[in-house]
Amino acid sequence: DPNLKVFSLNSNVELAQEIAKVIGVELGKCSVSQFSDGEIQINIEESIRGCDVYVIQSTSSPVNENIMELLIMIDALKRASAKTINIVMPYYGYARQDRKARAREPITAKLVANLLETAGATRVITLDLHAPQIQGFFDIPIDHLMGVPILADHFKSKELNGDVVIVSPDHGGVTRARKMAERLKAPIAIIDKRRPKPNVAEVMNIVGNIEGKVAILIDDIIDTAGTITLAANALVENGALEVYACCTHPVLSGPAIERIENSKIKELVVTNSIALAEEKRVEKIHQLSVAPLIGEAIIRVHEEQSVSTLFD
Amino acid sequence: DPNLKVFSLNSNVELAQEIAKVIGVELGKCSVSQFSDGEIQINIEESIRGCDVYVIQSTSSPVNENIMELLIMIDALKRASAKTINIVMPYYGYARQDRKARAREPITAKLVANLLETAGATRVITLDLHAPQIQGFFDIPIDHLMGVPILADHFKSKELNGDVVIVSPDHGGVTRARKMAERLKAPIAIIDKRRPKPNVAEVMNIVGNIEGKVAILIDDIIDTAGTITLAANALVENGALEVYACCTHPVLSGPAIERIENSKIKELVVTNSIALAEEKRVEKIHQLSVAPLIGEAIIRVHEEQSVSTLFD
Ligand SMILES: Nc1ncnc2c1ncn2[C@@H]1O[C@H](COP(=O)(O)O)[C@@H](O)[C@H]1O
Ligand SMILES: Nc1ncnc2c1ncn2[C@@H]1O[C@H](COP(=O)(O)O)[C@@H](O)[C@H]1O
Repeated sequence: DPNLKVFSLNSNVELAQEIAKVIGVELGKCSVSQFSDGEIQINIEESIRGCDVYVIQSTSSPVNENIMELLIMIDALKRASAKTINIVMPYYGYARQDRKARAREPITAKLVANLLETAGATRVITLDLHAPQIQGFFDIPIDHLMGVPILADHFKSKELNGDVVIVSPDHGGVTRARKMAERLKAPIAIIDKRRPKPNVAEVMNIVGNIEGKVAILIDDIIDTAGTITLAANALVENGALEVYACCTHPVLSGPAIERIENSKIKELVVTNSIALAEEKRVEKIHQLSVAPLIGEAIIRVHEEQSVSTLFD
Repeated sequence: DPNLKVFSLNSNVELAQEIAKVIGVELGKCSVSQFSDGEIQINIEESIRGCDVYVIQSTSSPVNENIMELLIMIDALKRASAKTINIVMPYYGYARQDRKARAREPITAKLVANLLETAGATRVITLDLHAPQIQGFFDIPIDHLMGVPILADHFKSKELNGDVVIVSPDHGGVTRARKMAERLKAPIAIIDKRRPKPNVAEVMNIVGNIEGKVAILIDDIIDTAGTITLAANALVENGALEVYACCTHPVLSGPAIERIENSKIKELVVTNSIALAEEKRVEKIHQLSVAPLIGEAIIRVHEEQSVSTLFD
């Protein structure tokens, strides 16, 4: 369909190329660069008048650059008479600022939703939002894809050395762990962190049976990797046979790589929702592609079919 | 007035402190930092409920960081029940992207206006917009201050070695040069760049009499300093006695400092609408403060008096 155009911005060009291949189109031509003073300069180099445009951009680090790039691109597309402007954000930055945890804090996840709509986005396709409530921050349609099936399929096809247990590193992740467990027909366990007294180190209690089992930790985001590596070590200390970890979004900032390398985690499985810089492509980290999932979602959205059946 | 609060973000803290001193208030307490992954974290540390809040932020380099910081701060202020949210932008980034110069370009100056309003700004105070038309991009009140009087006063109080002529480095700046010339009771000249044939270097024709005179070049923004240094050298070659240059906004990116140091410019006079990094604080550059102007403007806005009389 000549009216379907896919553009990539700068956050994740490799993934965008894979997605274009899945859909069977060439990426649209545009130049996205910077002026000498750091202002973003965008020029769309082919007509998109009357087209359904899909823009692929994860708002991962450098998050503020990537958000502005996206907003400016949307502005350019709108002024160039795109029919629809569909934003594909495999990773939605600022998703953890989704409520006021303290007085006088911003709710930046909502701000970003408002900015995208103001710029002219007409639809958002995203993956594993930190909080599904963020869907309600938008007044335009939002398609919410799930990474769990991709992660589960990886472990299904893998020779593992024993019975599996899926472990959530905290209470917030239990629903996600249960979804994974259903797919692998495995039980779940939960790590229950408690601080016995103020200013005393947290104690890791493990709720559920993990002894002698292959434990698979699952989270949505791994950022500095503190939680996940402490959890892995606690699992081994409490008798797990071996520990894998997985997540959809490998933010991996600060000490993350060092912590993972030094931890008891045997393999960390992530997706390419966020591109990994060269120095983060270490042996312990295995990256799975979300391009088939996102490509299929774009095709279905474009053909006005349901996306939810993608997860059945 | 305890209902008047002034906050500074990270782009220009020194100027904000000076402005607070002019007004006679302390800067409001807030922490503006980054999480490990580069996301901005803001917490306002004093109540601003029912207050008239003034936020000081130039959207200079790093422009995208500074814009996002500003938008997130506005969101936090709005949710903390500020009565009015007045944005003080001594330098308005993206002001040169104020129209479509080619097909399928964004109009980012307008996008920024929309983003500020969406976030919750109720008024904007700014200085020497690259194009005054940007005022029309806003649906909220905008106060537009002028830097020319500050620059003119500097040269008035200076011993100069002869008769003065004010020079605009291009056609676009003639109005500004005329305003300066009126204040200094001096004539004007214009540099008329022409490209005789495609792919042939531009020729600098000087319209007006500059021979034996002290030439003062004036522009709104000096960015890479190509135009201004070529103009200065052309003036000297054509018989100017000496050449000064001045501008409101010292963007000074890329080769700017080197070009200025190697040029025929005797002194470059700028304002502190943009903070100068340490390595840009060279001897040839003289910085004037806009704090008295902006402080007075804030007082007048707060007391619901006219700001335009500031320039009489
Ligand atoms: N980029 C970030 N890095 C680390 N923590 C964050 C970030 N953004 C938000 N937070 C904090 O994470 C908490 C929300 O995470 P959660 O409780 O897992 O939903 C809040 O206290 C936020 O202040
Ligand atoms: N940050 C920037 N640095 C250099 N040139 C720019 C920048 N932003 C916009 N422009 C270009 O400057 C021109 C507008 O400047 P002017 O003609 O002086 O109003 C347009 O052609 C823009 O593409």
